[in-house]
Amino acid sequence: MRLGTIGALLGWLFLFLSVVLLIPIAFSIYYDDGNWQFFVISSAIGFVLGGGLVWFCVSEPEIGHREGFAIVAFSWLAAAALGALPFYLSGAIPSYLNAYFESMSGFTTTGATILKRVEVLGPSLLFWRAFTQWLGGMGFIVLSLAILPILGIGGMQLFRAEMPGPTKDRITPRIQDTARILWSVYVLFTAVETVLLMLAGMSFFDAICHAFCTLATGGFSTRTDSIAAFHNPWIDLIVIVFIIIAGINFSLHFRLLSGNWKTFGRSEELRFYFGIGIVATIFVMLANILFATYDSWSDSLRYSTFQVWTILTGTGFHTANFDQWAPMCKITLVTLMFLGGMAGSTTGGIKQARILLFCKFTRMQIRKLIHPRAVEAIKLDNRKVPAEVIQSILGYLSLYAVVFVFATLIVTGQGLDMVTGSVAVIATLNNIGPGLAGVGPCENYAHIPGLSKGVLIMCMLAGRLELYTIIILFVPSYWKDVRYPRWRWSKA
Amino acid sequence: MRLGTIGALLGWLFLFLSVVLLIPIAFSIYYDDGNWQFFVISSAIGFVLGGGLVWFCVSEPEIGHREGFAIVAFSWLAAAALGALPFYLSGAIPSYLNAYFESMSGFTTTGATILKRVEVLGPSLLFWRAFTQWLGGMGFIVLSLAILPILGIGGMQLFRAEMPGPTKDRITPRIQDTARILWSVYVLFTAVETVLLMLAGMSFFDAICHAFCTLATGGFSTRTDSIAAFHNPWIDLIVIVFIIIAGINFSLHFRLLSGNWKTFGRSEELRFYFGIGIVATIFVMLANILFATYDSWSDSLRYSTFQVWTILTGTGFHTANFDQWAPMCKITLVTLMFLGGMAGSTTGGIKQARILLFCKFTRMQIRKLIHPRAVEAIKLDNRKVPAEVIQSILGYLSLYAVVFVFATLIVTGQGLDMVTGSVAVIATLNNIGPGLAGVGPCENYAHIPGLSKGVLIMCMLAGRLELYTIIILFVPSYWKDVRYPRWRWSKA
Repeated sequence: MRLGTIGALLGWLFLFLSVVLLIPIAFSIYYDDGNWQFFVISSAIGFVLGGGLVWFCVSEPEIGHREGFAIVAFSWLAAAALGALPFYLSGAIPSYLNAYFESMSGFTTTGATILKRVEVLGPSLLFWRAFTQWLGGMGFIVLSLAILPILGIGGMQLFRAEMPGPTKDRITPRIQDTARILWSVYVLFTAVETVLLMLAGMSFFDAICHAFCTLATGGFSTRTDSIAAFHNPWIDLIVIVFIIIAGINFSLHFRLLSGNWKTFGRSEELRFYFGIGIVATIFVMLANILFATYDSWSDSLRYSTFQVWTILTGTGFHTANFDQWAPMCKITLVTLMFLGGMAGSTTGGIKQARILLFCKFTRMQIRKLIHPRAVEAIKLDNRKVPAEVIQSILGYLSLYAVVFVFATLIVTGQGLDMVTGSVAVIATLNNIGPGLAGVGPCENYAHIPGLSKGVLIMCMLAGRLELYTIIILFVPSYWKDVRYPRWRWSKA
Repeated sequence: MRLGTIGALLGWLFLFLSVVLLIPIAFSIYYDDGNWQFFVISSAIGFVLGGGLVWFCVSEPEIGHREGFAIVAFSWLAAAALGALPFYLSGAIPSYLNAYFESMSGFTTTGATILKRVEVLGPSLLFWRAFTQWLGGMGFIVLSLAILPILGIGGMQLFRAEMPGPTKDRITPRIQDTARILWSVYVLFTAVETVLLMLAGMSFFDAICHAFCTLATGGFSTRTDSIAAFHNPWIDLIVIVFIIIAGINFSLHFRLLSGNWKTFGRSEELRFYFGIGIVATIFVMLANILFATYDSWSDSLRYSTFQVWTILTGTGFHTANFDQWAPMCKITLVTLMFLGGMAGSTTGGIKQARILLFCKFTRMQIRKLIHPRAVEAIKLDNRKVPAEVIQSILGYLSLYAVVFVFATLIVTGQGLDMVTGSVAVIATLNNIGPGLAGVGPCENYAHIPGLSKGVLIMCMLAGRLELYTIIILFVPSYWKDVRYPRWRWSKA
């Protein structure tokens, strides 16, 4: 464990953030909302911290397996800490804990808010809020397709070789090249959605903020009423389409854009993702018709489709107050919260690949009971999945349940009722945002007691970083053999 | 799939039940409750059905692997059907569906009731109700220690070789001998508890009924207020002790009774079971003190201890209306519902052994992340656990979650609210009995719509028979190569 390397890399992260913190200033000046100086101060703090770390800590050439976990976890913790400053300094969010919650909700692409009315932030802070999600999504794509597979978390090693790219069936193995390729896809989709939303009638500001939060499956909106505020079916439609796109593995998108239709169509996970989404949509729609939630079939279709996909992918936008829907619809939505989109997308939750492999495993178990001597291998996209990957995935599913239970225990211990408490944990752990009851789409997280907010912040982070990255930090043996930073001056 | 063998064995089951259905007649005559003739009729029906099946179906000498599943599942379905007759014929439960629910709740040792006041049944029916649980527990002990390990369900193969017995470290492998040994322990404990409860002030009738339901971890009581009706701390204490005993693997009890203290003390699962129970007790007690549920510490200790163990083992007796406790306590209890006691006991739920192995697996996964090259095996009681058993267990845990979600979807779809619906499923799937809200300890299951009652009946059965036994019946390929019964007359 080389703390020097970790420090130096965090320093570079701070320097990067200190640059991007200058972008919202343009909006502040354009809309004259009087918040530009807070971005300058935040940027300066980031620059000093980052510069200091980079200057003092000597990064050693080799980044080990064990440093990887700490770098990933501390990156998100540090980014959220710096990203919270504009909210806090401007006085828009007077408590730093709340500002940190909002910022972590951004960088983890969760979308849970502590604001009763988001409009009070003003344009530059709203832009920054949306931008944190976009940056978080960007970070996660590379994390899930390039870093987690190397660290071997929860079966993610499976998706390493799955990546496309210049060499026939493998993306360029170096992280930098992978990042460049995936980010270009991410930027392209963001630009296209921005243009389409503007064509549908949004202002540039609203369009780019919503595009940021769609592609990141984050769900922060510039309006308290989210997408419902626009009363525009075209906007609903554009957002749904891009939410669905954002739930797809970005390396598959890259294949598609490079003309490789075949691999795209062959992906079993993709078909499973669409299958789940379509079945859930029809189910919720029929339930809404059955329970007469809406006056017309078309409204049931419109709101059910939107809500199912936004929840399934963990985006968390809303066009309807689904907390008022029938219990069956709510249970379906809560179930969907756990699923998430495809591995390698910006969505939260368990991810479709893991669910699919679990289904295949169960089918195999049942077949084995019927034909005890049959030997069968589990395959995904015609490739054999190693037994230890299956084991990792099954273990991951069970661990997910345990984390959920422990977090729920603490938050209900602080007085939240059972539905609010458990759904708050589900909505943060799976990076959704809005939940039900006290944290429903028309409510917010401000009323939650301090310790519980801390737990929910850890849920967002643990969910985003696939549990193990966070859990491992609490294991004493992980911290053995710590090598303290070789400070630059000690060199001299 | 030899239907003849299945038919013949079910016939013998009916014949056995037709004999035990005569026992409640003694209570009916003694208390003069006027229900004796309904037991005679039920017994006669059982005799005719059983005799007919045994007469017509020729049992083939060999019982195959595949027949095993069908025999187990149909045994419980058939026993519940016959056991429901006295309730239905006497008019005490006018709907056969409700009578079937009550009877299935008995044979699966669940303890969920559709009766508002159980006292209306009268002594003989109350005795029968308790007796169904005792018989169900008896059946399950043999099922879990002798039959499921052979069928290889959800890692149960692990507990086959674990059994003690005449030969040094293996119980007599034949099912009949295993049954005889385990049942003698079961009968012995029942007798001891009956005597102790009588010494504490219960009538013989109350004492034997409660002893039946304690050892079976069933939880039917002769009083609507359950153990609370007796207002006697000695009775509380005796019941707690025997609940804890009933949650222990019966083959371990046999070892202990044969003087083999060492193996008893060495069992990791036993220590884990006590650990979980004690930690949960302290936690719930502190929460009850913190939230000032009771006036004194001693009351908090008394009620928390009782409720934690009765819920953990899935017994379902109550001395307090825990639905009124703080949300944190309720979430803890709901979590405990999933755990269950030790494998090889009469408890429902996942079982401590599986939870323990899951914990060991997670620890190993985390160690592997820290030291990727370390090779480590998972051990239980110093024996290496095969990887496929671990996989089975992890798959079982995930499947449990899926069954829970699907069942909850259906019952909330029929209009139950989210807490009532989900907890009703948890309380039946884990064979607990009382749940929270609409199915809380002071409520009952009568108000639940018909289809949902059917789903809950299937949950009780699926939970009792370790999921796969029931799920496999819905797999088309299981029913291939059905060999129709060789009727006796076709021999001539």
